[in-house]
Amino acid sequence: MRTTEVLFEPGRQDIVVTRTFAAPPDVVFAAMTDPELIPRWWGSRRFETTVEVMDVRRGGLWRFVTRQRSGAGTPYTFWGVYHDVVPGSLIVSTLQFEMGGPGHLQLVTDSFEATGDGGTLYTNVSLFQSVEDRDGWIPTDMESGIRDSLDLLDGVIGVTR
Amino acid sequence: MRTTEVLFEPGRQDIVVTRTFAAPPDVVFAAMTDPELIPRWWGSRRFETTVEVMDVRRGGLWRFVTRQRSGAGTPYTFWGVYHDVVPGSLIVSTLQFEMGGPGHLQLVTDSFEATGDGGTLYTNVSLFQSVEDRDGWIPTDMESGIRDSLDLLDGVIGVTR
Repeated sequence: MRTTEVLFEPGRQDIVVTRTFAAPPDVVFAAMTDPELIPRWWGSRRFETTVEVMDVRRGGLWRFVTRQRSGAGTPYTFWGVYHDVVPGSLIVSTLQFEMGGPGHLQLVTDSFEATGDGGTLYTNVSLFQSVEDRDGWIPTDMESGIRDSLDLLDGVIGVTR
Repeated sequence: MRTTEVLFEPGRQDIVVTRTFAAPPDVVFAAMTDPELIPRWWGSRRFETTVEVMDVRRGGLWRFVTRQRSGAGTPYTFWGVYHDVVPGSLIVSTLQFEMGGPGHLQLVTDSFEATGDGGTLYTNVSLFQSVEDRDGWIPTDMESGIRDSLDLLDGVIGVTR
């Protein structure tokens, strides 16, 4: 059973998520960067995600709209920019919740490392503008959302490889 | 005499720069975001800066090329994206050295606060991807470059207000 680790270290301003997948880095990277597949895993089962733009290259924009599947279906928009894209290995990008006030920007580093058994160790570091900004996310259901999203991605990878 | 404070706290992953200007926030903000004025202060006296693009609005790109005035004149390109732009008050953007390897991305928060005497307290927080990444900048002449650039900006503001 592959599990997702979500690490919040006290006093730090980042959240570190790790997860192993049974497919090699190029396959995991390809699945995560495919706009067609995003609605199948990004945002967890609770949200329906639409990709407005996803231009995975240096300087390219991404912009996703999510709606809660139950309830009012208010749209929540997230967007950012790709700063580094190294196929099969690394993505450095930004993530911002568009309707929030200014700030609350995250700098996200996704890395993909081959494991000895042909799998991938995926690490996601989300760096927040301050410790307070990060700590504001901890009481939310972000952690269960991450676990659920990566479980969904695991299923998507199982199908596509 | 207005001075620039540059603060590197041990173990943190940011650099905090503060400086007061004798002009109000809207004037300082307007000077800093004017592409025509960038070559007169950005990058310090040691470098000649050319603005390739500077689209100061959410999602807009900026890209500057600098060349050392003495020596070989090798071009160094810096670029990033504006995430928040609140006129007279706040800019949140990214900054990356284009020719470096991946990573080394900075998340930059510029804030402009009115002081009681009609001036501005300018604060610049540069957040790095790690403490190590930040610490790599400390032995460089970055600090003197910041002081020199903000002194030049002070002169530019003195002329334009």
